[in-house]
Amino acid sequence: MTEGNEMIHHTALVSDGAILGTNVTIGPFSIIHDGVTIGNGSSIGSHCEIGVFSDLASEKTLIIGVNSNIRSHSIFYIGSKFGKSLTTGHRVTIRENTIAGDDFQVGTLSDIQGDCTIGDYVRIHSNVHVGKSSKIGNFVWIFPYVVLTNDPHPPSEVRIGVNIGDFSVIATMSTILPGINIAKGALVGAHSLVNRDVASDTIVAGVPAKTIGLTSRIKLSNSPEESAYPWRRHFHRGYPLEITSEWLTEIYG
Amino acid sequence: MTEGNEMIHHTALVSDGAILGTNVTIGPFSIIHDGVTIGNGSSIGSHCEIGVFSDLASEKTLIIGVNSNIRSHSIFYIGSKFGKSLTTGHRVTIRENTIAGDDFQVGTLSDIQGDCTIGDYVRIHSNVHVGKSSKIGNFVWIFPYVVLTNDPHPPSEVRIGVNIGDFSVIATMSTILPGINIAKGALVGAHSLVNRDVASDTIVAGVPAKTIGLTSRIKLSNSPEESAYPWRRHFHRGYPLEITSEWLTEIYG
Amino acid sequence: MTEGNEMIHHTALVSDGAILGTNVTIGPFSIIHDGVTIGNGSSIGSHCEIGVFSDLASEKTLIIGVNSNIRSHSIFYIGSKFGKSLTTGHRVTIRENTIAGDDFQVGTLSDIQGDCTIGDYVRIHSNVHVGKSSKIGNFVWIFPYVVLTNDPHPPSEVRIGVNIGDFSVIATMSTILPGINIAKGALVGAHSLVNRDVASDTIVAGVPAKTIGLTSRIKLSNSPEESAYPWRRHFHRGYPLEITSEWLTEIYG
Repeated sequence: MTEGNEMIHHTALVSDGAILGTNVTIGPFSIIHDGVTIGNGSSIGSHCEIGVFSDLASEKTLIIGVNSNIRSHSIFYIGSKFGKSLTTGHRVTIRENTIAGDDFQVGTLSDIQGDCTIGDYVRIHSNVHVGKSSKIGNFVWIFPYVVLTNDPHPPSEVRIGVNIGDFSVIATMSTILPGINIAKGALVGAHSLVNRDVASDTIVAGVPAKTIGLTSRIKLSNSPEESAYPWRRHFHRGYPLEITSEWLTEIYG
Repeated sequence: MTEGNEMIHHTALVSDGAILGTNVTIGPFSIIHDGVTIGNGSSIGSHCEIGVFSDLASEKTLIIGVNSNIRSHSIFYIGSKFGKSLTTGHRVTIRENTIAGDDFQVGTLSDIQGDCTIGDYVRIHSNVHVGKSSKIGNFVWIFPYVVLTNDPHPPSEVRIGVNIGDFSVIATMSTILPGINIAKGALVGAHSLVNRDVASDTIVAGVPAKTIGLTSRIKLSNSPEESAYPWRRHFHRGYPLEITSEWLTEIYG
Repeated sequence: MTEGNEMIHHTALVSDGAILGTNVTIGPFSIIHDGVTIGNGSSIGSHCEIGVFSDLASEKTLIIGVNSNIRSHSIFYIGSKFGKSLTTGHRVTIRENTIAGDDFQVGTLSDIQGDCTIGDYVRIHSNVHVGKSSKIGNFVWIFPYVVLTNDPHPPSEVRIGVNIGDFSVIATMSTILPGINIAKGALVGAHSLVNRDVASDTIVAGVPAKTIGLTSRIKLSNSPEESAYPWRRHFHRGYPLEITSEWLTEIYG
C-alpha cells in the first residue's frame, strides 16, 4: 500500500502488506516485506531487505520513523521500531525487537542482534556489534569494531546485556563484557577490555581496563586549556539547538 | 536443472549447470552458478551469489547438504563441500576448498578464506575471520570478531594454519597466531592474543594470553556451585538427543 | 555511454552518464551511476553500486583505472580516483575523495572512509577500516581487522589522520591512534594499540605497543638463518620484475 508514491524503482519488490508514507524512495533491487511501515520522506537504498520474517519477533511489524535514510545493502528484521530520522550506513543488519529512539545513526557493517533498547540521538559508527539484551542510553557514541557481549560463560542460555549510560563514549575496538554498567559520561579508551563497571565521567583503558582518571583531564587538541569532556561542551554537530543550548546552560549556567 | 521446483524467484538467475534438489527455495536477485548442487529442502536468501568461479578451486563443484539455510547477501565460491543443515547468517563469504561437516552454523559477516577443514556441529558467530589452512574440530564455538591467522612473518608465501580442538571456545575479539594448537575443551578469554599452544580444558586470556587455570573453575552464573565447563554438561540447544545423552553419560557415568 | 560493449548483464543498471571502456564487464543487479569512468578491460561483479552520489565529493567523477576487478556487493562513492589494476574483494566500501595509485588491492569487507591518499601497490586485507584523512605510502601491507583512527578526543570535529610509510606492515587486529606516524619498513605486531610514532624498520607490539627491536631479528620460518624483513628480500608475488629487481639490487648490491 503506497500513498501516491512514484519513487519506487521498477526493480524493487514491495509487498502489498507494506505501508509506505508520502515521498518515500525505494532503490533498485530492494525488497520490502509485509508488516513494514516506512514514515514520510524516508529513503531506502538499493539491494536492501526490509522486514525479514522472524519467529522471534514480539510484534509482526517494523516501524521506521519519518525522514529516515537506510543506505544500500542493509537488512532489517520484522519486530523493531525506530523513531524519526534514523540514518544508517551500508550493509547494516538490525534484528528483531530492537527499540530505538529518534535520530539514531548506525554506520556501515554494524550489526544489532536484537532485543535491545537504544535511546535518542545515539551514534554507532561502522562495524559495531551490539549483542542481544544491550541497553544504550541517550547521546551515546560507540566507535568502530566495538563489541557489546552478553554471555558470561559461552556457550550458555544466559543473556546479561551491557548497560551504557547517557553521553558515554566507547572508543574503537573495545570489548565490553556481559552485564557491565558504563555510567553517564564515561570514556572507554581504544582497544580495551572492560570487565568492571565504569563510574561516571571516568576514563578506563587497557586489557583489562583500569581507571585512568576523570574525563576532564583530557584537553582539546586545538585549545589545550580547555577540557575535551564532557564533549557536549564543544561538539554540537547534528543536534538541534534546543538540546545544545540546554547543554550549555547546564555546563556554564 | 531442477527437480520439479517452483520456489525459484522469477528474478533469480539459476544456471542450467546447477543441480537443485526438491523443495529448494532461491530468493530474489540471487545467482546460482554452474557446478553448484543444493540438497533437498534447502533455502537460499535474496542477493546471494553461490558458486563463484575460482582458479584456486580443487574441484569445480560446490556441494551444499540437505536442509541448509543460507541467508541473504551471502557469497560462496566453487570448490567447497558442506554436510547437512548448513545454516548461515547474512553476508557470509566462504571461499574455495572449505570442507565442513554436518550442522555447521556461521554468522553474519563471517569470512572463511578457504583451504579449511571444519568438523561437525561447529558454531561460528558473527564477523569471524577464518584464515586459509585453518583446521577446526567438532563442536567448536568461535565468537564475534575472532581472527585465525596463518602467516608467521607477513607478507610471505608461508601458510601455517591454526588447529582448534573439539569442544573448545574462543571468546570475542581474540587473535590466534599462526600454527597455534588449541586443545580439546580449552577456553580463550575475550580480547586475547594467543601466541602459545593452549592445553586441554584450560583457560588462557590476555595480550599475550597467559594461562589462568582449568576451565572447571568458572561457575554457572545462575548456579554458583556448578562448573560452567565443560559446557556440554549444561548446554544442549541445537544438538540431537543421541549426542547430548552421550555427553551426559561421559560426564556423569 | 559504452564503447561497443556487450558484456553488460541485462539486469544491470548503467547510467547514460557513465563512461565504460572497451571490454568492460558489468555483473547482474549492479548499478553504475553518472560520472563514473571505468577503464578498458575492467570487471565489476554482481550487486555493486558504483558512483554513489555524495555532497562531500570534491569532484563529481569516479575514475577506475584499466584492468580493474571489483568483486560483488562492493560500493564506491563518487569523487575518488584509482590507478590501473585496482582489485577488490567482496563488499568493499570506498567513500569520496580517496586517491589511490596503481595496483591497489583491498579485501572483502574493508571500508575506506574517504579523504585518504594511498600509494602504489598497497595491499589491504579483509575487514580493515581506514579512517578519514589517512595517508598510506607505497608497498604497504595492512592485515585483517586493523583500524586507522583519526579523532584524538571523540566525538569532535578534529581529524588527524594516520601516516603509514612505504613497505611497512600492520598485522591483524591492531588499532592505530590519531596522527601516529609509522615509518618506512616498520612492523606493528598483531593485536596492538599504537599510541606513539614507530621508527623505521622497527617492531612494536602490545597494548599499548612497545618497541621490540629491529625487524631484521625475525627470521624466515623455513630458513632460520635469513631475516624475514625487509620482506622485499624474499616476497615478490604480484609485483612487476622491474620493481623486484630494483629491490634486490638495493639489498644485495
